[in-house]
Amino acid sequence: MAQQARAIRTRRTILQAAAEVFDEFGYEGASTTEIIARGGFTRGALYFHFPSKEALADAVMAVQSEALVPPVRKIRLQAVIDLTLLFAERLRTDVVLRAAVRLGVDQASNKNPNRAPYQEPINLIEQLLKEAGDRGELLPGADPQEVARTLVGAFTGIQIMSQVYERRQALPSRISVLWKYLLPSLAAPELMAYLSTDPERGKGDAPDTAPPEGMVGSAYGSLPTRA
Amino acid sequence: MAQQARAIRTRRTILQAAAEVFDEFGYEGASTTEIIARGGFTRGALYFHFPSKEALADAVMAVQSEALVPPVRKIRLQAVIDLTLLFAERLRTDVVLRAAVRLGVDQASNKNPNRAPYQEPINLIEQLLKEAGDRGELLPGADPQEVARTLVGAFTGIQIMSQVYERRQALPSRISVLWKYLLPSLAAPELMAYLSTDPERGKGDAPDTAPPEGMVGSAYGSLPTRA
Repeated sequence: MAQQARAIRTRRTILQAAAEVFDEFGYEGASTTEIIARGGFTRGALYFHFPSKEALADAVMAVQSEALVPPVRKIRLQAVIDLTLLFAERLRTDVVLRAAVRLGVDQASNKNPNRAPYQEPINLIEQLLKEAGDRGELLPGADPQEVARTLVGAFTGIQIMSQVYERRQALPSRISVLWKYLLPSLAAPELMAYLSTDPERGKGDAPDTAPPEGMVGSAYGSLPTRA
Repeated sequence: MAQQARAIRTRRTILQAAAEVFDEFGYEGASTTEIIARGGFTRGALYFHFPSKEALADAVMAVQSEALVPPVRKIRLQAVIDLTLLFAERLRTDVVLRAAVRLGVDQASNKNPNRAPYQEPINLIEQLLKEAGDRGELLPGADPQEVARTLVGAFTGIQIMSQVYERRQALPSRISVLWKYLLPSLAAPELMAYLSTDPERGKGDAPDTAPPEGMVGSAYGSLPTRA
């Protein structure tokens, strides 16, 4: 049992060191020698947990999936906004998530690139937007799949640019600006006053606002929700 | 003279070979040995023109600036739309431009990343949007700097995602979808019917539409243009 706990701790130490090196040098530039030097473990320990650099990169990239948990919000469109702001805020401070995102970008030119880093958030956001549509939150022209793809693509590039300009310190503000220009094409006009794109919401303690009367999720909600 | 022409041709051959290798392997993964093998020139020729891999990458990245020539359009907002669609279309077919964009992304995590690949298109688009504002083409809430930054960031990520999904074959359509959701926050309502976001415009032979009567650029334009 103590041995198992130690193994889990070692695995976490390795992932952290690998993330620091991947975040700094990218997949091609990262060496296992540098990762070992950074983390202070043995090459044997590294290969016991991860047989190759690729296996290590896969484990780091898996952290992105764990970060994709939609917050519970009465307004589904607010859940999508908050998901992006929470993710943006976490990218500022969590080197493992940062490395995961960088690895997803780095492998874009591979012969068989892994689509999961894009497809997972697209599926999640598309699902939330479909629910938003069913609840009357969206304008008729807003297509959940188009919007989900556009959001994930735009977020990917804005976080790279934010890295170049200010080490991602202004990333939540930049994502808030993206929402400022997208929301009028997405949200039902009567919902606009109930939505917030304040970048501070990324810190996680934002209040949950109910939608206007008559919309699902309000005290007087009457439209059908999904089963 | 013949010697100079040959030197120019060799330089171009080297840039082309370097672009193919950078596009495929990124900056860290690219080796001069592979570039030489690809292009069929000598190591001496390579180092005569480019003393280092970094110098080679800088020369490839400079191609992006050359591609950033705004098309002449009566409606300034249409010039911005067409600039993005032309760039998207060219990314599909021009490996040197593709490599330039990839190198701009690859160096994002460097200690001192080069902002030029982002700042140049931002400046260009911001200037066009300021002119659009002066001509009455924009909604009052549309801030040229915010919009320029958002567009460049979003474009950067959407082209990466398009690379992962379909080797950029659908990139013009994806950029057209981005415009579908951004334009209603940017364009004066009376201008909307005069704008086109058809992805086919990226092929370059799109008609140039005049704005509605009374707006600068129409036959009856009356608002002041910039000096």
